[in-house]
Amino acid sequence: MLDRCDLTKKADEGSYDKTLGSYKERLNYLQRSLRDQQIPVIIVIEGWNTAGITMAVHEIIQALDPRGFTLHAIEKPTEEERAHPFLWRFWLRTPPRGRIALFARGWYSRAISEEMQKHAWEKTLSGRVGQINNFERQLHDDGTVILKFFLHITKEEQKRRLDERERNPLTAWLVTPSIWNIHRHYEDSLPLIDRFIEKTDTDYAPWTIVEAMDRKYAILKIYGTIVKSLEKRADSIREGKQKKAKQKDLPLPKKNPVKRKALPEKKYSREECQESLASLQIEMLELHYLLFKRKIPLMIAYEGWDAAGKGGNITRLTRYMNPLGYYVVPVAAPTEHEKQYHYLRRFIKHFPKGGDIAIFDRSWYGRVLVERVEGFCTETDWQRAYREINEMEEDFVNSSGGGIVKFWLEIDKDEQLRRFQQRANDPQKVYKITDEDWRNREKWDLYTEAVDEMLARTSTEIAPWTVIESDDKWYSRVKALKTVINTVQNLL
Amino acid sequence: MLDRCDLTKKADEGSYDKTLGSYKERLNYLQRSLRDQQIPVIIVIEGWNTAGITMAVHEIIQALDPRGFTLHAIEKPTEEERAHPFLWRFWLRTPPRGRIALFARGWYSRAISEEMQKHAWEKTLSGRVGQINNFERQLHDDGTVILKFFLHITKEEQKRRLDERERNPLTAWLVTPSIWNIHRHYEDSLPLIDRFIEKTDTDYAPWTIVEAMDRKYAILKIYGTIVKSLEKRADSIREGKQKKAKQKDLPLPKKNPVKRKALPEKKYSREECQESLASLQIEMLELHYLLFKRKIPLMIAYEGWDAAGKGGNITRLTRYMNPLGYYVVPVAAPTEHEKQYHYLRRFIKHFPKGGDIAIFDRSWYGRVLVERVEGFCTETDWQRAYREINEMEEDFVNSSGGGIVKFWLEIDKDEQLRRFQQRANDPQKVYKITDEDWRNREKWDLYTEAVDEMLARTSTEIAPWTVIESDDKWYSRVKALKTVINTVQNLL
Repeated sequence: MLDRCDLTKKADEGSYDKTLGSYKERLNYLQRSLRDQQIPVIIVIEGWNTAGITMAVHEIIQALDPRGFTLHAIEKPTEEERAHPFLWRFWLRTPPRGRIALFARGWYSRAISEEMQKHAWEKTLSGRVGQINNFERQLHDDGTVILKFFLHITKEEQKRRLDERERNPLTAWLVTPSIWNIHRHYEDSLPLIDRFIEKTDTDYAPWTIVEAMDRKYAILKIYGTIVKSLEKRADSIREGKQKKAKQKDLPLPKKNPVKRKALPEKKYSREECQESLASLQIEMLELHYLLFKRKIPLMIAYEGWDAAGKGGNITRLTRYMNPLGYYVVPVAAPTEHEKQYHYLRRFIKHFPKGGDIAIFDRSWYGRVLVERVEGFCTETDWQRAYREINEMEEDFVNSSGGGIVKFWLEIDKDEQLRRFQQRANDPQKVYKITDEDWRNREKWDLYTEAVDEMLARTSTEIAPWTVIESDDKWYSRVKALKTVINTVQNLL
Repeated sequence: MLDRCDLTKKADEGSYDKTLGSYKERLNYLQRSLRDQQIPVIIVIEGWNTAGITMAVHEIIQALDPRGFTLHAIEKPTEEERAHPFLWRFWLRTPPRGRIALFARGWYSRAISEEMQKHAWEKTLSGRVGQINNFERQLHDDGTVILKFFLHITKEEQKRRLDERERNPLTAWLVTPSIWNIHRHYEDSLPLIDRFIEKTDTDYAPWTIVEAMDRKYAILKIYGTIVKSLEKRADSIREGKQKKAKQKDLPLPKKNPVKRKALPEKKYSREECQESLASLQIEMLELHYLLFKRKIPLMIAYEGWDAAGKGGNITRLTRYMNPLGYYVVPVAAPTEHEKQYHYLRRFIKHFPKGGDIAIFDRSWYGRVLVERVEGFCTETDWQRAYREINEMEEDFVNSSGGGIVKFWLEIDKDEQLRRFQQRANDPQKVYKITDEDWRNREKWDLYTEAVDEMLARTSTEIAPWTVIESDDKWYSRVKALKTVINTVQNLL
C-alpha cells in the first residue's frame, strides 16, 4: 500500500489556516457531542521516525478539551508490561465511554519492532495480526471508533530530517545511534510495515496512509479524516442507524458438550480425601516453585452454583502455595467505573504475570451467566461474548506460554437447599447467605440453560472446562487440586 | 531496640494450635467488623532475610477473606516507580476504607537498602525518617490503623537457614550471591535498622519487634498483636471514643501573606502581550527540552475564581510544548472510588515523573477551598490539610529535585459577572457556564476568606504562590508563562 502513495502531494498554502481552523472547531464540537453520546474514540498515529507524529499529536490536541482525552506516548514496555501478554498494556489504555485516547505510536510500532528482530517474520506475523484484529474488532463491537494513521516519508527525506535535528543543539541528543540504525534498515522494514498495514486494514479499524513529506498536507489529511469519520459516526447515531454488531445464531458445537455431574462415580471417605489432599498440597508447593522459577503464568477460574463450595475449595488449593506467588481475584458486580469500559478489561487487568498464579473467584464468564440471566447486558452482548472469551483465552495462552484451568463446581438443587438452610441456621455462617442467593435459586432452570451453553461453546482445547462433582466437598477439593497439578505438569 | 530482645523465647508447643486457632477466628471476625466500620488497615512485615516474612504472611492470610485484603510483595521499584518520589508507589498501594493492605516488606526495606548504599547514612537518614513519619501520620489522621513488625534473628541463625535452603534443590536458586552479600553485612546494617525502627516507632504507627528464632513463637506474637490492636480499635469506635485527630488552631504566619490583586500595576496593550507571549513560548520550548533531557519534573497548579481564565491560560502556556512531555490533569469532584482513600492520593497518583510537566487544572487545594466552603469535609479535615499539603509539596521537591508553580488567578467580582453574562449570551460558550458557577458566586465572601487563609498558610519557600492579576487576560497569560520560565531556569 505504501508504494502506491503519491508523496509529492502538498497543501494549498493559501487556504491552510482557514481549513485547519474550521477542522479544529468541528473537532472541538465533536468531542463534546461524542462525550454526550458516550462514544469512546481511539486514534493511533504511527509512522516513520521524523515523519511528524509528535507534530500531528500537537495539532490535534490544540482542538481538544483536556478534560476529555488522554495522550498515550507508547515507548518500550516496562518490566511489568513485558511480564504480561503483548496487548495487556494496550487493553489497560483503552478509553472509557465518551473519552478520546490518542496514541503517539501504539501496538503497531511495538509489534513491528518485535517482528523485525525475528529472522522469519513472514511466518510469525499472522499470529500477531490475528491478535490485533481481534482486539480492534472487540472494541469496535463494543462501540469504540478506531482510526489509524501511518505517516509516510521517503528514506532520503528521513535522512534530511535526522541531519537537521543533529545540527540543532537542542534536539541533537534525540538522534541516537539506534535511530540511525533503524534509518539504515528503512528498506528492510518497508515490506513488513506494508504487510502489517494491509492485513490490519479492516472495516472496523481502517488505516489512512498520510503522505507526510509536506507537513501541512499531512496535518490537513489527518484532521480531515478524523473530523469526517467522527461526524459520520455522530450522525448515524443521531439518526438511530447505529446498531451494535450482532452475532449470527451459531449452532452449538457437535462434539459432546461437557457433562455436568454433582456426584463422583465412586464414593470416597473423608479420611481418604484428606490424606490425598495433604500429599497433593506438597506436590503443588513444588510445582508452584517451578512455575515461579520458569516465569510461567497460570490462571484458575472458579465458577459454580451458589454454595457449591468455591471459597473452601480455593482455601485448600492455596494451603501450601507461597503467598507471594499467587493471588485471589474476587469478582463482584462491575463498579460504575468498570462499566465505562469493554467488559473484558477488568479481568485482563488482573491477568497474572510470568510466575504468578491468579485465582478468579467467579470470572469473565459472568457475562454469559449472571449478566445473561438477569438481563444486565443485551442478548447481542452475551451472544458475542463466547467468541470474545475464546479469543481472549487463546491470546493469553499463546502470548504468555501459560495455562488456564476453568472449574465448574456442580451441585444438585436439593444439596444447594440443604446448604442454604444450614447457613441460615448457623450464627457463624449466616452472613454468607443473602436474599440474592434465594432469588438466584428461583432461576435455577434459566441458569442451567446458560451453564450448558457456556460449557458447550467455551470448552476449547487450549482452555477446557473441568466439571467438579461437588456434592461431596472433600472429593471436590481433591479433584480441583489434581486438575491444577495435571495442568501445571503439562506446562513445565 | 533490637539488642534488648530476648531471642531465646519459644512458643508453648502444647497450646500452640489452640491459641492460633482462636486468633484466626478473632481476626476473621475483626476483618468483617472493620469492613463494616470502614476502617482501612495497613500491616507491614519487615525483617531479616529468612526470618519468616513469607511464612508470617501465609499464616495471616489463612484467616482472611480474600475479598477484603490485598497482599503487596514489595521488591525493587520498577522503572516507572524509580522515576517518581520514593513514597509514590506506597501511596498508590494504601488501602481503601474497610480493606486490609498487607505488606511483605514495605517502605522500610526499600529505605534501608537505599541508605545502606550511602557512605554517611547518619546524615541522610533523618530526611527519609521524616518523610515516612509524615506519611504514616497522615494516613493515621485519616483513620487508617498501621501495625509494623520486624522479625529478628541472629546472624548465626540466618546462616543456618540460608545453608538449609541451599541444600534443598527446590529453594537453592533463591539463595543468590546478593543474599549472601547482605548476610555478610549483618553487623553493619544492624545499627542502621535499629535507628530506623527507633525513629519511626510512633504512637500512630508503632513497631513490634518479633523474636523470630522460634517460628511458632513469632507467629503467635504477630497474630496476638494484630488481633489485640484491632480489637482495641474496633471497641473504641463502638464506644464512640474514636475521634479524628484535631489540629490546634494555628496562628496565621506573621509574614505578610500573599496579596491578591486583579489588575496589573501597569497597563499593557494586547499587541505588546501577544508579542512577548510569542517569544516566551519559544523560550519555553527550549527549557522544556532541557527539563526532559535532565529528567527534572515540574508541577503547575492552577487555582482561581470561576471564569478567571484558567483554560485559556493553560492553552497558551502549552502552545509550544512537546505534547509527549506534558499533560493536563483536570480536577473535578472526587469519584466514589477516590473517596475511599486519603484525599491526597488521587493527586499524588498524577505526580510527574522526571522530565514531565504536570499541569493541574484545579488541584489538591480544593480541600481548603470548595470542600471547606461547601462543607464536603469536616473543619478538622481542612484544618489539618494545610500542614499535609505543605509536607506533600516539600516531599515532592526534596525527593525529585523538581519544582512546583502555584497560580492563583485573581479577578474582580464585577469582572466575573461581566464574563458570566458574556458566556451566557454566546451560544458557542454557553456550555461553559452552569448553575453551580452562579451558586459559587453567591459565596464570594466565604471563598475570599478561604483563599486568603490558603495563600497565607501554604505559600512556602519551596512552593510559593504566585497571584496572577487576571482582569486582563493577555497580561495574565504573559505573567504565567514568565513565572514558569523563571522557575524552570532556577531548577536547571
